[in-house]
Amino acid sequence: MPNTIHIFGFHSLEAILNSSPELILNVFVQNSRRDRRMQDLLTKLDNQKIKYSSTDKSKLEKLAKGELHQGVLAKIALPALPGQDKLIEYVKHSSVNPLILILDSIQDPRNLGACLRSANAAGADCVVVNKDRSAPINALVHKTSAGAINQTKIFQVTNLARTIRELQKNGIWVLGLDGLSNNSLYKANLRESIALVMGSEGRGLRKLIKTSCDELASIPLMGNVESLNVSVATGIALFESIRQRQTN
Amino acid sequence: MPNTIHIFGFHSLEAILNSSPELILNVFVQNSRRDRRMQDLLTKLDNQKIKYSSTDKSKLEKLAKGELHQGVLAKIALPALPGQDKLIEYVKHSSVNPLILILDSIQDPRNLGACLRSANAAGADCVVVNKDRSAPINALVHKTSAGAINQTKIFQVTNLARTIRELQKNGIWVLGLDGLSNNSLYKANLRESIALVMGSEGRGLRKLIKTSCDELASIPLMGNVESLNVSVATGIALFESIRQRQTN
Repeated sequence: MPNTIHIFGFHSLEAILNSSPELILNVFVQNSRRDRRMQDLLTKLDNQKIKYSSTDKSKLEKLAKGELHQGVLAKIALPALPGQDKLIEYVKHSSVNPLILILDSIQDPRNLGACLRSANAAGADCVVVNKDRSAPINALVHKTSAGAINQTKIFQVTNLARTIRELQKNGIWVLGLDGLSNNSLYKANLRESIALVMGSEGRGLRKLIKTSCDELASIPLMGNVESLNVSVATGIALFESIRQRQTN
Repeated sequence: MPNTIHIFGFHSLEAILNSSPELILNVFVQNSRRDRRMQDLLTKLDNQKIKYSSTDKSKLEKLAKGELHQGVLAKIALPALPGQDKLIEYVKHSSVNPLILILDSIQDPRNLGACLRSANAAGADCVVVNKDRSAPINALVHKTSAGAINQTKIFQVTNLARTIRELQKNGIWVLGLDGLSNNSLYKANLRESIALVMGSEGRGLRKLIKTSCDELASIPLMGNVESLNVSVATGIALFESIRQRQTN
């Protein structure tokens, strides 16, 4: 049995319809909502031969458990994520200079979702998360990822330090973001085959992960706050790599 | 009467104690929590001659309304934010090449807080928000700002287009982030006196604000998602300015 989640709202359902309609198990739409946006959605569902149940608002409210649903709710399957072996196989066949994002123990589903969204937006080849210490991939991760969760290659590994060693053996330079490093991110070379490693909220990279990295670097902070939000730091690091790759 | 909010947890209270203890109106601590961290906090409060009430867990739970409080809660004053006149005065006397962040109608308190945190981390001179269309500055904004709300100069204006014109008259180049622009952020000059303008979630910059800008630019997106989270985009734009200012 695959893991399933409920997703809410037009935007989330439209994203799934465009990227991976085969994951949709059930759709519920509010029978009292008959506006243009709903009509368009129903037409799309009909065109893709996806059945839906017309239901009353109170049932939707109950299923949505307080989330903003806009009269639209769907149950979707979350296929099991591939692991380390598939990752290494994927890396061997990926683009000339892959850009990989590794998330070490991100705990907040909103942050995890935002990191996935940024990884997709940056065109990263894939994202690696550790299985036991990270937030589970739930409806909130799905929502904050803006659909990226279904459009980004995600690998889930049990031993991140071992995965890092395997990536290194396959020619990937592993750069960890560490607020204590004196090496500025802007001086690091992010053009080659690279994996960027982000640590968890509050604690940063675990010691074992830090020592596994080929290089550590920090985003130079100029104010009073001790750190950036992890999803913001992830976006800055990924897009610094994109900037470098686009300029000579 | 100043606006007041409740803040929760050790980190939030410690940040206020360090930056602006004069804003603290009341402190409540959980009488059953007697560990080292609590002892350290009580010592700090005593040293700064700030009174606190020792109270039971159930009362704290009630005041915290479901937020994670760790046994610590404080009521703090939010002084009224200065407006456009003070902003222009401030800009006239600010650093050689000020970096200003303008937030046009950010609706989600978490995004607003994360933007303030990034602005502080980037050492931005100040942040400008519009009064009627933005999320109110509440406890959630405070929390997600990681204390930046009390350590960053924030101006609140009623007419953002007019404020932009006044900034321009005072030598500030106003650059709006607009996903539809073909001008890459990485080709824009962010070294001079600049205000970066970020639009709201989903809708981006309003038309009037867009036409008020001196230049529009976009972060080059490489994936399937339509946009970045606004707080991530804000971090990328601010730190691209820092990168340019640190390199020649």
